Amino acid sequence: MCGIFGIEGCDDASNLTYLGLYALQHRGQESSGIVSWDGGKLHFLRAMGHVSDVFHEKALADLPGYRAIGHTRYSTAGTSVIDNAQPIVVRTSFGQLALVHNGNLVNPGEIRHRLEGEGSIFQTTSDTEVILHLMAKAQRRVVVESFMLALEQVRGAYSLLLIAEDCLIAARDPNGFRPLVLGDLDGKPCFASESCAFDLLGARLVRELEPGEVVVARGGQIESYRLAQHTEPARCIFEHVYFARPDSKVFGVSVAQSRLRMGARLAREAPAPADIVVPVPDSGMYAAMGYSRESGLPLELGLTRNHYVGRTFIEPKQSIRHFGVKIKLNPVRELLEGKRVVLVDDSIVRGTTSKKIVRMVREGGAAEVHLRISAPPTQWPCHYGIDTPIRNELIAANHSIEEIRQFIEADSLAYLTLEGMITAVGGAPESYCTACWTGDYRVLVSPWDQRQAELFPARAEER
Amino acid sequence: MCGIFGIEGCDDASNLTYLGLYALQHRGQESSGIVSWDGGKLHFLRAMGHVSDVFHEKALADLPGYRAIGHTRYSTAGTSVIDNAQPIVVRTSFGQLALVHNGNLVNPGEIRHRLEGEGSIFQTTSDTEVILHLMAKAQRRVVVESFMLALEQVRGAYSLLLIAEDCLIAARDPNGFRPLVLGDLDGKPCFASESCAFDLLGARLVRELEPGEVVVARGGQIESYRLAQHTEPARCIFEHVYFARPDSKVFGVSVAQSRLRMGARLAREAPAPADIVVPVPDSGMYAAMGYSRESGLPLELGLTRNHYVGRTFIEPKQSIRHFGVKIKLNPVRELLEGKRVVLVDDSIVRGTTSKKIVRMVREGGAAEVHLRISAPPTQWPCHYGIDTPIRNELIAANHSIEEIRQFIEADSLAYLTLEGMITAVGGAPESYCTACWTGDYRVLVSPWDQRQAELFPARAEER
Amino acid sequence: MCGIFGIEGCDDASNLTYLGLYALQHRGQESSGIVSWDGGKLHFLRAMGHVSDVFHEKALADLPGYRAIGHTRYSTAGTSVIDNAQPIVVRTSFGQLALVHNGNLVNPGEIRHRLEGEGSIFQTTSDTEVILHLMAKAQRRVVVESFMLALEQVRGAYSLLLIAEDCLIAARDPNGFRPLVLGDLDGKPCFASESCAFDLLGARLVRELEPGEVVVARGGQIESYRLAQHTEPARCIFEHVYFARPDSKVFGVSVAQSRLRMGARLAREAPAPADIVVPVPDSGMYAAMGYSRESGLPLELGLTRNHYVGRTFIEPKQSIRHFGVKIKLNPVRELLEGKRVVLVDDSIVRGTTSKKIVRMVREGGAAEVHLRISAPPTQWPCHYGIDTPIRNELIAANHSIEEIRQFIEADSLAYLTLEGMITAVGGAPESYCTACWTGDYRVLVSPWDQRQAELFPARAEER
Amino acid sequence: MCGIFGIEGCDDASNLTYLGLYALQHRGQESSGIVSWDGGKLHFLRAMGHVSDVFHEKALADLPGYRAIGHTRYSTAGTSVIDNAQPIVVRTSFGQLALVHNGNLVNPGEIRHRLEGEGSIFQTTSDTEVILHLMAKAQRRVVVESFMLALEQVRGAYSLLLIAEDCLIAARDPNGFRPLVLGDLDGKPCFASESCAFDLLGARLVRELEPGEVVVARGGQIESYRLAQHTEPARCIFEHVYFARPDSKVFGVSVAQSRLRMGARLAREAPAPADIVVPVPDSGMYAAMGYSRESGLPLELGLTRNHYVGRTFIEPKQSIRHFGVKIKLNPVRELLEGKRVVLVDDSIVRGTTSKKIVRMVREGGAAEVHLRISAPPTQWPCHYGIDTPIRNELIAANHSIEEIRQFIEADSLAYLTLEGMITAVGGAPESYCTACWTGDYRVLVSPWDQRQAELFPARAEER
Repeated sequence: MCGIFGIEGCDDASNLTYLGLYALQHRGQESSGIVSWDGGKLHFLRAMGHVSDVFHEKALADLPGYRAIGHTRYSTAGTSVIDNAQPIVVRTSFGQLALVHNGNLVNPGEIRHRLEGEGSIFQTTSDTEVILHLMAKAQRRVVVESFMLALEQVRGAYSLLLIAEDCLIAARDPNGFRPLVLGDLDGKPCFASESCAFDLLGARLVRELEPGEVVVARGGQIESYRLAQHTEPARCIFEHVYFARPDSKVFGVSVAQSRLRMGARLAREAPAPADIVVPVPDSGMYAAMGYSRESGLPLELGLTRNHYVGRTFIEPKQSIRHFGVKIKLNPVRELLEGKRVVLVDDSIVRGTTSKKIVRMVREGGAAEVHLRISAPPTQWPCHYGIDTPIRNELIAANHSIEEIRQFIEADSLAYLTLEGMITAVGGAPESYCTACWTGDYRVLVSPWDQRQAELFPARAEER
Repeated sequence: MCGIFGIEGCDDASNLTYLGLYALQHRGQESSGIVSWDGGKLHFLRAMGHVSDVFHEKALADLPGYRAIGHTRYSTAGTSVIDNAQPIVVRTSFGQLALVHNGNLVNPGEIRHRLEGEGSIFQTTSDTEVILHLMAKAQRRVVVESFMLALEQVRGAYSLLLIAEDCLIAARDPNGFRPLVLGDLDGKPCFASESCAFDLLGARLVRELEPGEVVVARGGQIESYRLAQHTEPARCIFEHVYFARPDSKVFGVSVAQSRLRMGARLAREAPAPADIVVPVPDSGMYAAMGYSRESGLPLELGLTRNHYVGRTFIEPKQSIRHFGVKIKLNPVRELLEGKRVVLVDDSIVRGTTSKKIVRMVREGGAAEVHLRISAPPTQWPCHYGIDTPIRNELIAANHSIEEIRQFIEADSLAYLTLEGMITAVGGAPESYCTACWTGDYRVLVSPWDQRQAELFPARAEER
Repeated sequence: MCGIFGIEGCDDASNLTYLGLYALQHRGQESSGIVSWDGGKLHFLRAMGHVSDVFHEKALADLPGYRAIGHTRYSTAGTSVIDNAQPIVVRTSFGQLALVHNGNLVNPGEIRHRLEGEGSIFQTTSDTEVILHLMAKAQRRVVVESFMLALEQVRGAYSLLLIAEDCLIAARDPNGFRPLVLGDLDGKPCFASESCAFDLLGARLVRELEPGEVVVARGGQIESYRLAQHTEPARCIFEHVYFARPDSKVFGVSVAQSRLRMGARLAREAPAPADIVVPVPDSGMYAAMGYSRESGLPLELGLTRNHYVGRTFIEPKQSIRHFGVKIKLNPVRELLEGKRVVLVDDSIVRGTTSKKIVRMVREGGAAEVHLRISAPPTQWPCHYGIDTPIRNELIAANHSIEEIRQFIEADSLAYLTLEGMITAVGGAPESYCTACWTGDYRVLVSPWDQRQAELFPARAEER
Repeated sequence: MCGIFGIEGCDDASNLTYLGLYALQHRGQESSGIVSWDGGKLHFLRAMGHVSDVFHEKALADLPGYRAIGHTRYSTAGTSVIDNAQPIVVRTSFGQLALVHNGNLVNPGEIRHRLEGEGSIFQTTSDTEVILHLMAKAQRRVVVESFMLALEQVRGAYSLLLIAEDCLIAARDPNGFRPLVLGDLDGKPCFASESCAFDLLGARLVRELEPGEVVVARGGQIESYRLAQHTEPARCIFEHVYFARPDSKVFGVSVAQSRLRMGARLAREAPAPADIVVPVPDSGMYAAMGYSRESGLPLELGLTRNHYVGRTFIEPKQSIRHFGVKIKLNPVRELLEGKRVVLVDDSIVRGTTSKKIVRMVREGGAAEVHLRISAPPTQWPCHYGIDTPIRNELIAANHSIEEIRQFIEADSLAYLTLEGMITAVGGAPESYCTACWTGDYRVLVSPWDQRQAELFPARAEER
């Protein structure tokens, strides 16, 4: 779960990158980093925190140059997390390089093991660093050649932006798991995880990079290359269900519209004997609106969200109350009182949060609560970059829908079908990765990495 | 614009106050402060920043006790703003006192001038401090008597919470300009600007304090007193239009519902030849929904809001773009394209922001933009605590509606009528303060304060 | 224990004050504060920490003006110590005032009690605030008149600098307990606790203020007034023994020279059968040199001091070692080995530190350790601003010199006589305060304050 | 210019390392870092700032384990300096490694170039990182073998401490340029740049590591190895002249005593027609004392040092004064007035500071100023880790002693002879590096590194 942005050939490149990251902040709030190239050297800053906390005026002034990339990252906690913060910056025989990565590789341990056996040393535990090592080993005179040779050895999900001394390079894995779009700001190329970053800058969305495409940008010019591997696209639908901003176009489709269609489809597939439709804000908003329109049931904003929630809050010492969900959401009793409610959300993970929200709506006065989920049951962990828990923590992995309903104490529960979801987004069904719902992993974790993960679960997590 | 919270007789009083302020964060984001009393002395912390930035675990541990009050404050900038942060804490002949205040007095300068003439010295430029001086001068043995004697000398808007060594006292001005509610947490009294703070804590909303009521809480007991002044209520409707959280009950009425009714009323008073209704998030959301239902035009979330906006952001040096509004809002082209849009917001102040939003919607593809405002034109500054600019900066103070429409470049523009707005909230029309729309100030600024403000505009602002 | 500095009529007044405080940092390291007046308003900053930590470039830029005062303060700890940080800034009927104070009053509680009974409210627990209240009560049109009326009501030790809207005023108590000097920087008056501050700025030392003198500076002009009280001078010799910087002139006498003479005198009064003289750095340096010269015994720097000691350090969890003194001092074995050592220090307070140093010198190889103290035994607490412990913690208050010698495990121990010390400094013996050695308090603590201190020791400390 | 410390087999290893660094703070104030090993993984923290600023209680609690190394570093400024902060921590085929380094290699560029050509990537510009790469390439099963193979490829000055998963290793280069001592804390081995770190901990100084020695510590056991290269010792005398703490033993000799002897020797070689001897504090203190004793001229502390100098200070905007030296030093007029002064310092680098000090002493009243330097003229830059400027900034590189005297405006100027200095320290003359005075570099910079430095002076500095 990360957002990346890059721009080539513009004055104030780091400031524009900062604004791009600002628009991508929803993709990761833990750490932020920017690298710029001023023609002579790389400058960089990365730190824990939101983009607006890390980059003050002075910090941006210390990042001069006409080429920049940036990264905003969500990650599981740990003591040395700052060391895994991106961009990763290194020095090689072809000069300084900096790299940002959205996605997850599935064979980093295997490659790392091989490289360590050849005497390579690693600074981070991130899978991203192996790409730089492979590049350095490739030793081609032209940076893009080394980059492509490196990418042909890794497998998994990656949208990448690389700064070299003479160009900026963008690459998307052959399956195109994660999004990556090309924009144009006054004739200069820019790249972003989502098009909403271009909207903020006033850049024009040119197109998505194709799966397996590598784009070299130098000044106002771009050249396109293609990785050798041939595979089918496996685009992550979860971007549409939950992750992307509604005002972005992802895989060429408006996220807001695909969510509206998911909601409408859900209304047809799983109607409910109810009086009102209530979204779980903010993620369920568009789907709820689609449900409302299709069903004819009025939409009510029966749950409000506290937008001033900080990163932590402190419970009273002897508290028996649990403020976790209440700090974010509050029911509007006047709208819920006596009503049979269709509650619309995008997913159920462990079930504990959903249970609290259902209870909150009921205590807010609802007569009945019918939970509708705008995607199928999440049953499998993601290996391609979405931060889902391990399998046996996913409630749908080992419970029936009726068991889940009982656990979350809803009057009824229904999920959107896989077919319904894919149809709502549009495009060829086989072009999407559906692993988290079906277990159909298009790219398998390497046996070496798999074995390590089983032998040393903690270390695997760390690596 | 402030939020206040207090609780009496509970363990962990400061932690509960912190949670209460968390829920009131929307009422002020500049500074936060809490005072607690542990039976022997007051402990306090106040600092610039959000509640969750100021109060970490250790900070709360340094605020022990069973009685606490807190404050969250919006204020105009200045170098020494921290010195005006609340609570104000002083030592007097009857021990330590701490006070928080929501609202604005209209005769503080006059009183201050008198007190200074008698040798009093002031630490702050806030109007709140005069109340403590008047109390100290009153010299009654019983704190509440001194407090009431002080309040009978000041005029204007105040909802107050006072910590004394033997009790917590809440007071609301005789006009009841600002809200103040009494709650019950497991048998212990608590007080808050809005009921949403009680919802978070799991406290029960008992009732609003009445205008002119003074409540003394000691342990689980409360006693109620009444200020001598007799006046008509003048409750601030702007709380319903814009300021309060939709899940609060203010003046006994659900804010969400009154906004839905304002929108519905607006649809009847000012229909528009349009295809869709689009709210300006988040303030226009409920009114837009009311407009949509009443008009039958579908609601579309055609503007998205970036919820990760920090307190500042940095524009590129040679920027000709202005990111101010774009950093917060972004149009969803797919929903706006080719549509005639009714755009619903709660107010137009200077007109510049509205102009940018109208333009954003048009550039997002809208064929027409019809702006509808869920309140009458704001023409007069508020003297009772809402932070409006001076009169000649209010666009409606000296421009006709048609002139405003031209300025903001909308295809049409209409405001809700005063009658419509009051009817939507409900209750006796004369029980509300409507000064910002009508200039009908129920409590006049004292001639002395008025003269000072005219002679020394800057100093007046500072005082 | 505080340092104060002020300057009048100069551009960049706050920056010059900052430099003055820099030179006075040894007089207090806990908090720092500066107030400046720019012709229209006061600007101020005060915070916990050293001058160089608190005042960065931007902070000084926020303190514009041609008149400034500053304060650097040592204080006993407490949770709300920042609230007692100086300067104290208030608003009165004759405008804004700011005050800094070095010294301690002996009747602040009594005055405070009276003022609270008249309705005054206090922001701090500091004795300094009562002076501002008394000024405000005086209500004379001319600030210096109010100031002098206030000073004639307080008793004790004070060197004060006051900023008013039209002048800067310096005052020294009638006994002249604490030092205060007048300087001249390019024709503009400046004031400081010690002359070393003038040396740094390149200002000329004009003269000491006389006891009971009040100097009003306005632009380049000064006027001198005299307080009505007539008393004998009681200048604090401890400034010469320990507190002041050796390069300062205090009470007209070079501190370095008086310490050299104390050491020489000590050598005559208390010779020792030794091989070398070793100072306890840095305070015993000059006295040791005087001792060495007079005795003919060579000086050896047998103890080094770690100048990078931070404000705190952290001991290992299961540590049985106590690093307190070792973190600061380390013996130089090669210089001490087998030598009979005369160790010279300026005072013994509780005896525990002296005991550790004697042991350190012995473990460093010394054959014998003869401790010589360049002042008489400290037997009484100071009421005039030196931070000594209460009487029964002073080892000399209830132990004979032989008992102390046994406790600190020295081979011999001797103190300089009172007469010897006074002779070393020079001037009329009766012009000095010798209370900490003799209990001869020139100004008695008011009975009211005394009683409070006995009834409520903790509260007294707090007040 | 760095200090290093390490300890093996002790509880609270990071806390003991922190105390060791505390004692070595004078060797570098820019950044501080500690790595600990807890049996399962490395923990580390490194940051800009003094040891006591970087390591608070919580920070040390986050560094658990029984093995730790630490580093305190001085470095030339730069935007990304934190990235060169030590310890350097990496992951290799034989697990995690962490390394700290005092000294400078002379062929890092050459090795780096070769490694980059083989595909290695570098995180830092420090010479230290190449050692870890060479280790990783060595691929021996036993860590110490890989380490020694690596060290046999690098040339220059290094005192190193390495943490591996099963031991702590200390190494000193074959010339023994920089000091490194072995200590014993309750039976557990510890290592430090200087013995003063052991004094603080209460550890016993066992011995210096020999040039070319490699010591492996595991639990309470140590094993000693020897690097293959055979060369003559070339110990840095500048440690004795200036860098080390006087209470340390360096190369088996007391620093305080060698400085005393330098001063005495200087008095014989270069007597002066003077009245008093005045040290430039603190570096010239011991040499001045030696000069005083030998010459019979009395020592006077005629310059005081302000020990509260922060890392930066801010000059007034229109200042024509230059506070640089005055903020640190101040003359004591009473001691200097009318005197002919021998001023003793340890070195003259560019001459500008010496000029200011001479002027300060003269303005302090001295009749004559005779500057005596306790080392020969510094004419050549150091390649082995002392931070001297490039050759043409060294005033003695291209000026005669008479020219320097005129520049600094002294009445006379003399330096200690090379022979005198070496005799004062003791030991075989040829066992010392004298390059900064004679240009006789024992280990030459590799031609490759030399060429790079000439072609790209900035980049060379960066690398």
